Order: sequence, then structure tokens, then C-alpha cells
Amino acid sequence: MDDVLFPTVGIAGIGLIGGSLAKDLRTFGLTNRLIGWNRTAAHAERALELGLVDDLAPSLEALVAACDLTVLAMPVDVLVRLLPGLLSTLRPGQVLIDVGSTKQAIAQAAANHPNRRQFVACHPMAGTEKSGPDAAIDNLFRNRFTLLIDPEASDPEALARVSAMWQRVGAVLATLSAEAHDRTAALLSHMPHVLAYALARTIKEAERNQALNARFAGGGLASMTRIAHSPITMWQPIFRQNREALLTAIDAFSAHLAAFRKAIAEGDDDALVELMR
Amino acid sequence: MDDVLFPTVGIAGIGLIGGSLAKDLRTFGLTNRLIGWNRTAAHAERALELGLVDDLAPSLEALVAACDLTVLAMPVDVLVRLLPGLLSTLRPGQVLIDVGSTKQAIAQAAANHPNRRQFVACHPMAGTEKSGPDAAIDNLFRNRFTLLIDPEASDPEALARVSAMWQRVGAVLATLSAEAHDRTAALLSHMPHVLAYALARTIKEAERNQALNARFAGGGLASMTRIAHSPITMWQPIFRQNREALLTAIDAFSAHLAAFRKAIAEGDDDALVELMR
Repeated sequence: MDDVLFPTVGIAGIGLIGGSLAKDLRTFGLTNRLIGWNRTAAHAERALELGLVDDLAPSLEALVAACDLTVLAMPVDVLVRLLPGLLSTLRPGQVLIDVGSTKQAIAQAAANHPNRRQFVACHPMAGTEKSGPDAAIDNLFRNRFTLLIDPEASDPEALARVSAMWQRVGAVLATLSAEAHDRTAALLSHMPHVLAYALARTIKEAERNQALNARFAGGGLASMTRIAHSPITMWQPIFRQNREALLTAIDAFSAHLAAFRKAIAEGDDDALVELMR
Repeated sequence: MDDVLFPTVGIAGIGLIGGSLAKDLRTFGLTNRLIGWNRTAAHAERALELGLVDDLAPSLEALVAACDLTVLAMPVDVLVRLLPGLLSTLRPGQVLIDVGSTKQAIAQAAANHPNRRQFVACHPMAGTEKSGPDAAIDNLFRNRFTLLIDPEASDPEALARVSAMWQRVGAVLATLSAEAHDRTAALLSHMPHVLAYALARTIKEAERNQALNARFAGGGLASMTRIAHSPITMWQPIFRQNREALLTAIDAFSAHLAAFRKAIAEGDDDALVELMR
């Protein structure tokens, strides 16, 4: 019982991230009771069937009301829309966290809210291209960074307990401002996802034009397009919310690609080898 | 003994591809004796130590002279330079194959040679980002395509035995012209490698400018840059030999990336979702 950090935990959005965290919270004994809610009712039922949660809540509001900690693991557009209202329902001692991939929009949505300090913005830098409750796996966060955003905006006690939770599931913690986070995520995650989607589309179109039999591909292409299988409903709002940093990252990549193209076109082996080093 | 296709096989270049093929030839009993040669003597010694080959040849010419089949697994620039001279040394019944990633240059180098029909151009669409004899693994070719290029230019008996060898190590065979091969390889392999190198460089530079802590990266970036660890000495000549098809493939990708950029910049969600589909 000493291990319990939050007696009752709610998971709002029981997919890859929410479901994997639920698994770990149970495995490591960090909670006594897990309650789930999902906008897609079939996913909620499946999560219950898989034993990811002990119960389902009839609504998101009922979930938050029943839990010491609620984990908001939903697309970032939904998150930004719902967060202020959910913050308003919190009783003293209750904690909300999100696990979204963009942070400036959520920081703005929470700013100046009287219950802002009960919210801790988190970004576990972990995932796979899969989604839904069946994608939940053990130890997803282990030895991966979880970024805590604008930690000074949260209550120290809430922050300490949330930090302890991530550390107990194996995550390495770091703190960043929302602005630094979004720039970092644009370069390390959002822009690479755009490249994967654009590459997958390039190959599909060449196939459609019958210029190519893509079945001949080896492991390299599979590796480069793996993350293009990530769900559109999750990524489109990320691209929208992090537009400026994402465009900057795409332009940085495009400049490097143009340098490679130039060296290849000009047969400039010295330049090419220097670029590849 | 019925399984033996080539009593003595020479592996010229005992790295990832040559070494893995050596392993499989032994495992499946397709040869009685494996002899190795490597331009880097330390790699040859290591291959012997690992048991990938039974013996080492003192020179490439000695290797070819001693073997029923010699597998040329070397960078494509070296291959194109050496192939005509090696073809000239062949006795009747001896067979040469290459496993290079570009084929028009090698087709030209072999064209009109009196022994052209003893050569079979092969491209196993398999690999990892690792290199050297320690990178050799079992079953690398299993359930992967091996492309046979311009098969009509080879002696039918040589082609049949080489085809049988690839099938016995688990490869799926397909035939292509050298031109179609190079266009296909540009799209499925060479261009994705350029993207991986350019992405890795973008991240490195952002780190150097202290705009980024790349340690925060999750699995997506690792997946996208994995193949950028491939050896430069192997890839630079591929990019050079397949320049035109590679530039076309890069431009096709760039056009798709530009469409993504435009949809993101304009906040055109419909266009973005359509592109991601």
C-alpha cells in the first residue's frame, strides 16, 4: 500500500498511451483502482475486456469527479477544448495531467484558470505507430524521457506526485517551457512524421502511376514509413497547433535535402561525403 | 550432396550481404567450400575467425580462379571498375554474380564482353544499417525479394543455378530491366536513404546550435534515421551511379512535402487529411 500514489486513477482516452500507462500503474502498484472513459464507446468496452481498467465512467465529467488523478490522453484539439471546463470541476487535492504532443496551446487554455496549479502538463516521448486499447503495452515509458512542461505553474505537491509516478514507471524526467517543448517536438517528432507521411504518399503515387512495384521494398522503406501508420485524427491537430515550429523544422530539413540534391546533381563527391558524415 | 549448387563459392566482400549469404549457403548445404576475400584485410581475417568462410584467397583474381561461383559484394564503384577484368579471367562453367544496388552502370560495364553470359546481376532487397563481417546474420534474404536484372543477358543454365540458390535461401525472385531496376531502387531505397541522411543532419545541426536536446527523441526519430547509419563508402557511389533516377525521386518527394507544407501553412485541414490518408 505504500506504493500507492493516487488511490483512484482515471484514464480519459484508453489507447496506446493511456492504456499503457494504466498497465504500468497496475503492475507497479501505484493505484488501487483504474477507471476508464473513451469517446469511442467500443474502445472503452474493449479496454474493460482487456483488463486495462476496473470500471468505466459514464461521462468524462463523472470520471474526473471520481478520481484522484485523471490522465487526459486524447487528441490535442479535444484536449484544448475540454481542459478549462474540466479544471473548473476539480475539488482540492484532485490532479489532472495531459499527455499531449503540443504544449503552447494547452498552456494558453489553462493559463489564469483558478485551478491551474492542479494541472501538470506532461509529454512522454514514447509510442508506436499503433493505436487503440489493443496497442497498449507494458513498460512503454521505460528509459524514455517524459517531459514536464512549465512545472512552476503547477502545485509543488501535485508535481511531486506526478513526477514520482512517471519515475516509478521507468521514465526519465526533464523539464521544459511550453515554447521550448513545441520547438523540440517539432524537430524530433512532428516534422519526421510529416516526412514519413510525404514519403508514403510519394511511393503510393508512383505505384498508382505504375512506375513502381512497391512490394520489392526492403526494410529501409518500412523503417522510414512506419510512423506514417499513426492515426490521422491524432496527428492533424498536432500539425495545426504546432504550425509555426513545424514549418520552421520542415524548412530546416528542406534546406539540408536541397544541399544533398545539389551535391548529387553536380557530382560533387566531396560535398556529398561531408554532408553524409 | 544433392543440395550442392556450386561446389566452391567465393565471397568477395565479406560484410553484411556477402557474409549473410555465406552463412545461408553453409546452413542450407548449397556449397562444399567457402572462400573469402576482402579489400580490408582485417575484415577478411575476422570473417575467417567467425567461420563465415573456410579459407581466404590471396587476391580477388585468385578467388575467382578457385571458385565455381563468385559473389561480388563490394561498393558499386569498385564493382564497375573490376567487373570487365574479372569476366575476362573466367573459364567455361564459372559464374559471377554481383549484389550491388545500381544496375545500369554494371550492365554497361559488362555489355558486349565475350563472357557476359557467365554473369548474373542480382539485387537482394534486404539489409540492415550495419556493415562488416560481424553484421552477417542468418536468413537475411528470407521472404525478401531478390531482383534478377536483364536475365536474358545471362546463360540460362547459370541463371537457373543462381535462381535456385536465391530461392533455397528463402528469397522471392522477380526480374527487371536495369533501367526499371534503377528507377525502382531510387524510389524504394536510394531516395529514402538520402532523406534519412538529411534528417539526421538537420537534427545534428539543431543540436549544435543548441536549439535542441536530441536525447529527448522517442522511437519515431530513431526509426526514421536508422538507415543513415549505413556506411558512406557504400552509399556515395550508389547516389553517384543512379543520379538521374535519384534526382527524379527526390523531386517527387519534395513535391509531396511541399504539398504538406502548404496545407499546414494555410491551415487547410481538408487538404491535410486528404494528403495523410
